[in-house]
Amino acid sequence: MNPADLDPEVGWLAMGPWPFPHGKPGRFVSGDDSGERFQIRYYKDGGDERTLRGKVWFGPGAEGPPLHAHGGAMAAVLDEACGMSCWIRGIPVIAKTLATSFHTMLPLGKVLWIRATYEEVSDTDMLIRGELFLDETIYASAEAVFARIRGKTLDIIRDSVAKRES
Amino acid sequence: MNPADLDPEVGWLAMGPWPFPHGKPGRFVSGDDSGERFQIRYYKDGGDERTLRGKVWFGPGAEGPPLHAHGGAMAAVLDEACGMSCWIRGIPVIAKTLATSFHTMLPLGKVLWIRATYEEVSDTDMLIRGELFLDETIYASAEAVFARIRGKTLDIIRDSVAKRES
Repeated sequence: MNPADLDPEVGWLAMGPWPFPHGKPGRFVSGDDSGERFQIRYYKDGGDERTLRGKVWFGPGAEGPPLHAHGGAMAAVLDEACGMSCWIRGIPVIAKTLATSFHTMLPLGKVLWIRATYEEVSDTDMLIRGELFLDETIYASAEAVFARIRGKTLDIIRDSVAKRES
Repeated sequence: MNPADLDPEVGWLAMGPWPFPHGKPGRFVSGDDSGERFQIRYYKDGGDERTLRGKVWFGPGAEGPPLHAHGGAMAAVLDEACGMSCWIRGIPVIAKTLATSFHTMLPLGKVLWIRATYEEVSDTDMLIRGELFLDETIYASAEAVFARIRGKTLDIIRDSVAKRES
């Protein structure tokens, strides 16, 4: 894959440093250090602060059906992108539910575009819609509910960060 | 991880060879050849032919939040397990939708039990419920719709198998 294939489109802004208290995300999706499953770059949408933009390459390590991406690989990227749409705007969240629809089988080696948009539906919950698409073709989409992180969940994450750094 | 931690419980039967036309599944979940994300074994339920059993270990490569499994990793295992419940009974399927609920944060290094049960809801569709749990604690659950593979989808998979083997 040519890294320039992940470059931003007009109106997409740099995300800045990872927004997590622990820096880079874990290894499963964006933190993939094999470089064989995913290559991802996220951006802010210059015109809509509730929207995350991005591009993602699915490599041979993301295989499910022969030469095609595993449905779980698309679900995992959508999960991360939905959460990221809030994190990059300073809203720490964690997934409660993720409803993924698989529209089109995805051949490995393609670069798809990512879009995820959140709305606040209550004091605690965000409803987030995400899509993986290219031109007019949607490969997978998701509707997710993420909860703002607080209380016990925040304690678990803080304790884990401390444990890892000790 | 001790491989014996994935041994069957009483009433769980050997799955036999992988049920796919292409043999072993792709690398993303069960085909993980790094051994760092997942270690999984599936079984048939001796008392209920519509139920798949299994055990799964989540390793450091499955990390999302610090020292915990990525939600997408749990979703990916549930996706595969739901499909597998049909494949091991001779019903080739592919995911249409996967609705995952995340109940409890999962610390890395744990072995969870897998259960997935399908029912035929139409001539084409299977409704499948899956769970990742340990003792009384459910970590994640899913409700999925899978379609029987036929027609165009079957052609795509056959072509990919032929392409890979040539």
